[in-house]
Amino acid sequence: MATPAVVLLSGGLDSTTAAAIAIAEGFEPRALTVRYGQVHEVELEAAKAVVAALGIREHKILDVDLAGFGGSSLTGHGEIPKDRPLDTIGAPGDVPSTYVPARNTVLCALALSYCEAIGARDIFIGVNVLDATGYPDCRPEFIGAFERLARLATRTRDIRMHAPLIALTKAQIIRRGLELGVSYAITHSCYDPTDGAACGRCDPCLLRKKGFAEAGVPDPTRYA
Amino acid sequence: MATPAVVLLSGGLDSTTAAAIAIAEGFEPRALTVRYGQVHEVELEAAKAVVAALGIREHKILDVDLAGFGGSSLTGHGEIPKDRPLDTIGAPGDVPSTYVPARNTVLCALALSYCEAIGARDIFIGVNVLDATGYPDCRPEFIGAFERLARLATRTRDIRMHAPLIALTKAQIIRRGLELGVSYAITHSCYDPTDGAACGRCDPCLLRKKGFAEAGVPDPTRYA
Repeated sequence: MATPAVVLLSGGLDSTTAAAIAIAEGFEPRALTVRYGQVHEVELEAAKAVVAALGIREHKILDVDLAGFGGSSLTGHGEIPKDRPLDTIGAPGDVPSTYVPARNTVLCALALSYCEAIGARDIFIGVNVLDATGYPDCRPEFIGAFERLARLATRTRDIRMHAPLIALTKAQIIRRGLELGVSYAITHSCYDPTDGAACGRCDPCLLRKKGFAEAGVPDPTRYA
Repeated sequence: MATPAVVLLSGGLDSTTAAAIAIAEGFEPRALTVRYGQVHEVELEAAKAVVAALGIREHKILDVDLAGFGGSSLTGHGEIPKDRPLDTIGAPGDVPSTYVPARNTVLCALALSYCEAIGARDIFIGVNVLDATGYPDCRPEFIGAFERLARLATRTRDIRMHAPLIALTKAQIIRRGLELGVSYAITHSCYDPTDGAACGRCDPCLLRKKGFAEAGVPDPTRYA
């Protein structure tokens, strides 16, 4: 029997690749998707499509109203930034308005609860620090600190955090996913979609386009 | 203007005292209560009463379905233990079935999100390690690790975790609360109440009774 693992799955390019890597590494993933009030709630439909495509057997979709706390354009408080120069995205000190306060801490905490409840020890998260926005909770130091916390916080002392994309560029992530048979057409990255079509101008759209270009493969994203 | 702080408030004896201490220390608390599927949901009514009694101006009640993950008698999966000998409660290695996987990690993560969203830096939590059940996420090591995580996870680098009860016995907590004018009659600790009346036999009831006895003050709890 394969070893169970919890995979945080937004339905985006990164988390989908992380899920495919978990499977390739011999884990049997259980997906956790959180509806936290993100304005691009359409990503939840992508998450469901990914779960079906990867043959994941269990998918929990959890509601947690972080939008009620405010503090982020990604939860409806302000405009989503557009057309930012690529060299400023993720630059040192760049924390854009789309940063949701402590979001990845909340997501990892929920994954930890799920993980321990089902007797698993492994958690996958698709954060990456290169070709990414400058969110503080996407850095290796964050993942390391969360793993240390997790081992103190639970009955299960040997929780392992897996962030297999952490040091990859977007192009490398895409190439790895394609090797594993990922269909990126069903994934969703855009923060400001219209009828499911990507805007092509927000940070994740810009990074995604750049990734496909650098990987030298066609971008299957439907842009508005 | 007083400094804002987030106080995790269950409506129990400990978190109520922690809130009173936050006020005494000059903070203006915002209360966060989480409905996570606890079988003793009646504690939410106590939390509201405490908010009113302490004059707390903002109270967020958040739904997060940890019960859906399973793994705890406190969220409806199994019987609440009763009549356990006092010297076994909280003994080394004693993690009772009422432990909710990673609950305090989830609560602290949500408090962190709220804290950062409102521009605060201080979080109060009423955990204590003496006269407590043996939950791993009530120990000082957990609080320290969470504070280290919080500083890496957020834009706000100087988050401070306050656990003012951590090294107090239940009797000391009660005495401190009474000095601050806390009315313990409106607080709720029992895991298995009937019509709002405490069972008197679960771990928190036994610890609470012992605390009032040792403090030498009348126990205002309504027992079934």
